[in-house]
Amino acid sequence: MKKVSHLLLLSSLICLPQISYAKQEIAAANNIEYPKHLTNWRIIGTSLRNDNNTQRAILGNAIAIKAARAGIKKINWPKGAILAKLVWKNETLPTWQAATVPGDFVHAEIMVRDAKKYAATGGWGFARWTGLELTPHGKDSSSAQACFDCHQAASGTDYVFTQPAKLP
Amino acid sequence: MKKVSHLLLLSSLICLPQISYAKQEIAAANNIEYPKHLTNWRIIGTSLRNDNNTQRAILGNAIAIKAARAGIKKINWPKGAILAKLVWKNETLPTWQAATVPGDFVHAEIMVRDAKKYAATGGWGFARWTGLELTPHGKDSSSAQACFDCHQAASGTDYVFTQPAKLP
Repeated sequence: MKKVSHLLLLSSLICLPQISYAKQEIAAANNIEYPKHLTNWRIIGTSLRNDNNTQRAILGNAIAIKAARAGIKKINWPKGAILAKLVWKNETLPTWQAATVPGDFVHAEIMVRDAKKYAATGGWGFARWTGLELTPHGKDSSSAQACFDCHQAASGTDYVFTQPAKLP
Repeated sequence: MKKVSHLLLLSSLICLPQISYAKQEIAAANNIEYPKHLTNWRIIGTSLRNDNNTQRAILGNAIAIKAARAGIKKINWPKGAILAKLVWKNETLPTWQAATVPGDFVHAEIMVRDAKKYAATGGWGFARWTGLELTPHGKDSSSAQACFDCHQAASGTDYVFTQPAKLP
């Protein structure tokens, strides 16, 4: 009887993660997992890029939100902070022609803070998933290096372009 | 002794709401209360207005998010849905000149769905709070009428300009 209950316990331990994974079959990018429920994260800011005709919402996990909303001038992003960008092509709103709104979804990308683990890329792990189907972008760490090269422009703000928007 | 405990109970009942109110002394606008924890709401979309040099994040309460993310083409916004806009002046990002990012905070504004209560303004209650201090905008329902007049342009989409952004 004890053996049976052990088997049941073992079986439930094996099965539970499978049930969980089955709900979200998104492959890792640069060995970084796509954060579950990312679209439920709170907002840090917005931005529009005129050089590639896109706009984005910048969200943060709980650790990032706590840091972003602490009201300090220069943020010391803590270990475990994740910043996420949801990026869309710009489109004109039919009912208000002067408004530029999200069109096609381009990609989701994240920066994960771990000064030790990602020391080679400024203390940030970079990952991107393309399209609504969230296809991992890049097969190895060389794509993270490409991200980091571009983020050099923000070396004065901890390699983070986003400055949290003022919130009431 | 029974009288003392009654007094203690009464005192706690009186004091608790005071503690709560003290944390957020924001006056109602158009008889509509400012939703607590609005900045913790989930995202529906973003937009940029070229006619007044602003950008915004559009958030929703739980009822609105459920409707927005149900994947239906034309949304039937249910009773109790609240859409919120956080609006900032556009600014150029110093570290990436082609990026337009949030500068000064302009206002927070909401639309509250109640077809019966707000029948005179398309089934939506409108309210706005100006600046980081969230000063109520407008002293009576005439300001809601001004909102509604502008929203006539979106009469084909239930008087809502925002179409939920595509999310992965």
